[in-house]
Amino acid sequence: MVTLDFSKSDDGLVPAIAQDAETGEILMLAYINEQSWKRTLETGKATYWSRSRRAFWVKGESSGNVQRIKEILVDCDQDTVVFKIEQVGGAACHKGYKSCFYRQVTPEGLKLVGQRVFDPAEVYGEK
Amino acid sequence: MVTLDFSKSDDGLVPAIAQDAETGEILMLAYINEQSWKRTLETGKATYWSRSRRAFWVKGESSGNVQRIKEILVDCDQDTVVFKIEQVGGAACHKGYKSCFYRQVTPEGLKLVGQRVFDPAEVYGEK
Repeated sequence: MVTLDFSKSDDGLVPAIAQDAETGEILMLAYINEQSWKRTLETGKATYWSRSRRAFWVKGESSGNVQRIKEILVDCDQDTVVFKIEQVGGAACHKGYKSCFYRQVTPEGLKLVGQRVFDPAEVYGEK
Repeated sequence: MVTLDFSKSDDGLVPAIAQDAETGEILMLAYINEQSWKRTLETGKATYWSRSRRAFWVKGESSGNVQRIKEILVDCDQDTVVFKIEQVGGAACHKGYKSCFYRQVTPEGLKLVGQRVFDPAEVYGEK
């Protein structure tokens, strides 16, 4: 198994960037620890470590909208990875957007530029 | 100024993903604190916080190979940013590659897939 350097950050986590394997669009960033790295490699499904829930997080596990790994890239310091993925269902963001990066910084503040795929109120019952 | 959430990680830093504004290729990931975020917005040049040197880091400041900001995206939680940049000189990685993500994970280990732009031995005097 390819070894990553989990020692760089105080919390022992490494950022994983999920990128659309087809279009190159950056969909989200989440964190992995050694076990989630291992599970991702074994299962072919992006498996993160949720910092808020302090638990493994197979993205889309309950909804079926998983992230199928197509390719993984590792950086020069082996402390960041890129997951090139196929996002089942089309939306990586819990707010219903294709990408979590759906807002652009402008001099006037944040401007919506992303593409909404679903309404979170309908899916999660959120306002 | 758009506010980011620096409270999520133990070290008070937020990851910034540098992406080629033209091609969509992910070039590197580094970290910012509040001051480097401010400086990036003010100067239009990607300014990180070096975790190893514990200092501000205007990428390419000494060589002139800076990262010119073309667009900035912010994620849903406001704890990660994407810098869409023009990489002056063509290489973002100190190893001489266009991208720091020049290696692919394969069952046999890491496979070189990146494009080398310069030889670090000539530029930095490294072996």
